[in-house]
Formats: sequence, structure tokens, C-alpha cells
Amino acid sequence: MKYVTYLDTAGDARAGLLIGGHIADLERGLQWAQEKGRCLEQRSYPASLLRFLELGCDARELAAFFREETTWTAEDFATPLEKANLLAPLPNPRSFRDFYAFEEHVKTARGNRGADMVPEWYDFPVFYFSNHQAVVGPEAQVERPRYTQALDYELEIGIVIGKQGRDIAPEDAHEYVAGLMVLNDWSARDIQMQEVKVGLGPAKGKDFATSMGPYLLTLDELEDVRDGNRWALEMTARVNGLELSRGNFKGIYFSLGELIARASDGVTLYPGDVLGTGTVGTGCILELTTNVHRWLEPGDVVELEVERLGILRNSII
Amino acid sequence: MKYVTYLDTAGDARAGLLIGGHIADLERGLQWAQEKGRCLEQRSYPASLLRFLELGCDARELAAFFREETTWTAEDFATPLEKANLLAPLPNPRSFRDFYAFEEHVKTARGNRGADMVPEWYDFPVFYFSNHQAVVGPEAQVERPRYTQALDYELEIGIVIGKQGRDIAPEDAHEYVAGLMVLNDWSARDIQMQEVKVGLGPAKGKDFATSMGPYLLTLDELEDVRDGNRWALEMTARVNGLELSRGNFKGIYFSLGELIARASDGVTLYPGDVLGTGTVGTGCILELTTNVHRWLEPGDVVELEVERLGILRNSII
Repeated sequence: MKYVTYLDTAGDARAGLLIGGHIADLERGLQWAQEKGRCLEQRSYPASLLRFLELGCDARELAAFFREETTWTAEDFATPLEKANLLAPLPNPRSFRDFYAFEEHVKTARGNRGADMVPEWYDFPVFYFSNHQAVVGPEAQVERPRYTQALDYELEIGIVIGKQGRDIAPEDAHEYVAGLMVLNDWSARDIQMQEVKVGLGPAKGKDFATSMGPYLLTLDELEDVRDGNRWALEMTARVNGLELSRGNFKGIYFSLGELIARASDGVTLYPGDVLGTGTVGTGCILELTTNVHRWLEPGDVVELEVERLGILRNSII
Repeated sequence: MKYVTYLDTAGDARAGLLIGGHIADLERGLQWAQEKGRCLEQRSYPASLLRFLELGCDARELAAFFREETTWTAEDFATPLEKANLLAPLPNPRSFRDFYAFEEHVKTARGNRGADMVPEWYDFPVFYFSNHQAVVGPEAQVERPRYTQALDYELEIGIVIGKQGRDIAPEDAHEYVAGLMVLNDWSARDIQMQEVKVGLGPAKGKDFATSMGPYLLTLDELEDVRDGNRWALEMTARVNGLELSRGNFKGIYFSLGELIARASDGVTLYPGDVLGTGTVGTGCILELTTNVHRWLEPGDVVELEVERLGILRNSII
């Protein structure tokens, strides 16, 4: 299933299912299905995807019904994708942790500034908390902060937690995942370079915006590209149509289960928490160096694409 | 005014005002005052302090009425403080940023491990985001995570944002503050030391618990100890009754306005966001060294006291 959040004609953010070329409003779509005598054991769905996850709702039966009974696309709870105003799938996540789990990215980014690999990096997956209140969606304009001359993108995958848990074992972690989405951890490299010297990690260098979307894909849709606890998903980034980054999710050093285990060690994770994987190798200008591409400027269009997860496109203003 | 959150007899978390030795439930107290013909221009108050702040509610008139008309303490919306089960004043903050704004703490903590002061520290107040979903209240038991042998406290002040704002100038910052409270940023030093080597700052070293409380004090109550943009408030910490830490809030290098300006630079702050000041000089065992006191162990009782802001007491299990 592909979950989205879209703005309806009244300007309200509402959760939907993307099926074929149409979005079915989740709450209104369920009502319609129930009028047809289907999905009767489901209670009503809330309007927001966060609340949907918190309540432990399950839309599998509705999605199956809408794949077979396609007349719903003419109903008023259906919106053609090309007319839809999409927000981030989860516009208001409860929290945002970002990992650093691709070896090539860490090695190259450090190597570019003459730093060796830190041995501790291999011991455990490390993350930082970032600003979960600055999430933007697909097609949104991202403002270059006035204080930076070194705006960069980061090509990542975002993991949305769907079930509350604590001390989650890596082998159990998949059942805590609501889905995956493309994630762009926008970064002000000049600010980041200054502040990390003090030892508290990045904050202002990354707190102004994080893009997510266009949709949240459930893991069951990825079984055919799964190999154990890795998924083969090609990841690319283009700036103004020019491909700069290419990697694959299967190359991640720590598995998704290991990331969730680390985050939940001694700490409760909640539905609606987001974990970022960190940047795939070659997945940002910092790593490529400005010999390959200058820092981003107003007018640039950045497209991050992950196989199966779609294209997350944003322009800089 | 002193805002608290307490558990009522039904087990619900509710916002209250601490006046004298009693807590007045905010929602029910307002109803009572309105039955007496007072505070009529106030709408109803919500049950949670977060919602109270988000709605921009103002309890000054109610507090003034309750200071003069003291018969309310016999009503059933009043709870004697000694019988009250206090939670953190804001048990569910929207976010938590922690600064590093006391020079002595940074100098000594770095000096203890042979590191020089970082020149960048003086250029801007640096912070990291931490886990806002692991907040505990006064008198709560704090579990020592199984993965640490080096549990420490940190004596800080927490600033609660009361009004939405962005690009807030230091001189305007006080109007965005709902109040101050004592804050203990519990730290697992062994984990922190490992993870900061990778360069993303502290995360697992500090994500398991943060204590806040016992109450949130509004800035108007501190006018007599204010000197420009600093407040003279003695800060002390005791472990099992033994004083280990002593400092003063007036010694903070960056003012509260400068912290808020930094956090809000290019980023929106919301009511219910919490900013920590960072640890006052001498305010943790890391800085004092384990020659002065061993790391914390189950059974230890840690009391952080800030003049006017009360005592935040927690025991380790």
C-alpha cells in the first residue's frame, strides 16, 4: 500500500491511499466501502495518518477492495494524482532520528576533509535527533536559509514506525515499520562544519527543512526485492535534470533492524516516529565535492528517486 | 505563577496552578471562579498545559483571584501539594533542544580529558536535539539503562516556549517564554564518549530520560533577581544529601535571548518546545571527576535545586 497525505479542496490535510492514478481518502473511502457492505469490521478511520498509525488501523482490506472494485475513482472522495496537492506522507511526525549507516558516504565525506574513518563507526549505528517540526512534502519549495552559502541535499530513505515498542530485537523490527519513503535531509554545510567542532553534532546545519515523500510504501510491497534483511532499491539524485548520485539501499552497512534496535534500546518508539537511514554513497554534494557540482542555489530543482518509493522533487527558493 | 501538571484521583494528567501549598486545577478552577463572577472574559481552559500554551491562555487573573480569595483550597478542584502526584510541568513537550551555554562546564569537562576549548564555542550558542518523548517528573524513579556503568546527572534550567515565533530577536525573546523550570539531563557518559567520536553528537548517551520540574515559573516572578538579561538564581545539586554542585544562572555565557534567537533562526518555535541551558559549572560528575564522586548507582537520590524554581528530586533504580 501507498499512504499519502493530501490537501482536500477545503484545505485540510487528510490521509489517503494511492492506488493506480488516484488517491482514495481513507476516512471517506472506508465509509463508502462500508455502505457497499465491505470492511465492516474496521472502525472509522481518522483524518490524519499519524492518528491512523497511533490507533493501529489496518487498510489492507480497503486497498484490496479498491484494487478490484475500481468504480470508486469516480466518487467524490477520489482525487486524480495529477490534481492532488500532496504533503509529506506524515506531515507531523512525532520525532526524527537520522542515522549515518552507509559506509561509503562516511568514508568519502571524511576522506574529503583528510579525516580517517572512525573505528567506532563499525561498532554500532550512530544517529542524531533532528527537527521533526520542519517537514516539507513533495513539490514544495525549500527556502535556502539566509545564513548559508553551502546548501546541499542528502539522498536517504525514511522509515516510519507503525507500532509502539521498546528494546526491539533486530529480527522483530520489520513488524514495527509502517513503511518506507524517500527522504531529503537538507543541509547547510558551512553552518554544520562550524557547529560540529563544538562536539554536539549537527543542529542548525540541518534543522530548517527535511523533505519526505511522495508516499509511504508498506514493506509487504517489497518482498520481491528483499534479500534477507536488505532490499535492492536503486537510489538516484538529479539536480536540474543532471544525475549526480547513484547508489543502492542494499549497500547499507547496518540493517533496518539494527537501526530500530539501536533507537529503541532502553527507549520507547512510538507510531509516527521517523528514522532516516543516512545518506547513501555519492548521495550529496559534500561527498562528490564542489568540483562535481556547486552548492545549491535558488532556482535549482532537486529530484531524489528511489526505486518503488517514487520521486521526491523540490525546488530551491 | 507556578504551573504544574498533576495526576488527579482518576489518574488523568491535568494542568494546575500551584498557589501557597495547594494546587488549583486550571480547568475546574476557572469554572469555579466564573461561577463567582470572575475571569468571565476567559474561555474554558483545556486539561493539558501543552494545549493551554498552544491556545495562548492566560491565567494571571485567575491566579490573582486565588491569592486573594483563599476559600478555593477547600473545594474539590484543590489538592494539597503534599498529597499531589506531580508529573513534569509539561509531560509531553513538542521538542527538546539542549544548549551548552555555561563556559566553566565546557572548559572543565574538556580540560578533564585533555582537550582545549574550541574557539567556535564563543561564536554562537550550540545545541543538539534530544528525545522529547522520555520526560519524567519530580520524585519519579529513573532507571539506570542496563548498558551504562557511568550514569550522571546534569544541573540545568529548562525554558518552555509559550508563543509561536521565528527569527526571534534576543531583545524580544522574553515574551516567547512561558516560564523556567529545573531540568536534569541524565547522561550515560560511557555511551556518550563512544558515540560522539563519530561526530553526530550525543544521542543514546542522553535519550533515555530527562527530568523536569517540579513546576514552571513565569518570568514575571523573577523581576527582583533580574539584572538586564541575566537572572541571579543559585543552582545546587546533591546526591544522597551531599552537595556536589554549586553555580549561578547569572554566570551563563549566552543569554536566554541569544539561545532563543539561535534556535529560532530560520526555524519556527512552537508553544511547548523546551530549550535546556546546558549544565552550569560544576553541575555534573563528569566535570567534578569520579575522584569527587563515583557514577550514580541504583538507590542514589539526586536533588537539583534552583533558587525560586524548587527542588527536582529523583531516585535511581
